[in-house]
Amino acid sequence: MGNQELNDLRKQVEDVNLRLLELINERGRLVQEIGRVKETQGVNRFDPVRERDMLNIIKEYNDGPFENATVEHIFKEIFKAGLDLQQENHQKALLV
Amino acid sequence: MGNQELNDLRKQVEDVNLRLLELINERGRLVQEIGRVKETQGVNRFDPVRERDMLNIIKEYNDGPFENATVEHIFKEIFKAGLDLQQENHQKALLV
Repeated sequence: MGNQELNDLRKQVEDVNLRLLELINERGRLVQEIGRVKETQGVNRFDPVRERDMLNIIKEYNDGPFENATVEHIFKEIFKAGLDLQQENHQKALLV
Repeated sequence: MGNQELNDLRKQVEDVNLRLLELINERGRLVQEIGRVKETQGVNRFDPVRERDMLNIIKEYNDGPFENATVEHIFKEIFKAGLDLQQENHQKALLV
């Protein structure tokens, strides 16, 4: 019984992993697009106030089981990856 | 024009953030459940081979814009948060 249950739960985790991957990359595409728009406007890409606002909204909606500090830590990594992506695009644009 | 476009994209990012939050916590609940099942079986919670397998599947499905190394880094943080959650539950169980 326990093994069947374990296999079932693991399959669900695999499924969630791939949905997370999809969303992380969707976020990456949006952030790239934002970088392009900002580029044409000559606006700075990194906006610490907006990042703080996003984290506040996320923590407001967080109903666990992860604590806010954990969720914040994971999202900061996701945000950082997005900024790096914008930075790479920016440098490629300069090289063209 | 640019500002409207920027606002639109930002709204989409906010939406993706909350869907990510939902999935991260869904994964947390599943991992907690797996920890409980393993507990009754006396099986070790951390399974490095399974973590490696999950990362391999994730990288196989990754079609960018994030590179595999970035995706792997983010998922390792998510995996670690899940293990910490199992650990906390385990310690609470011992204290009861």
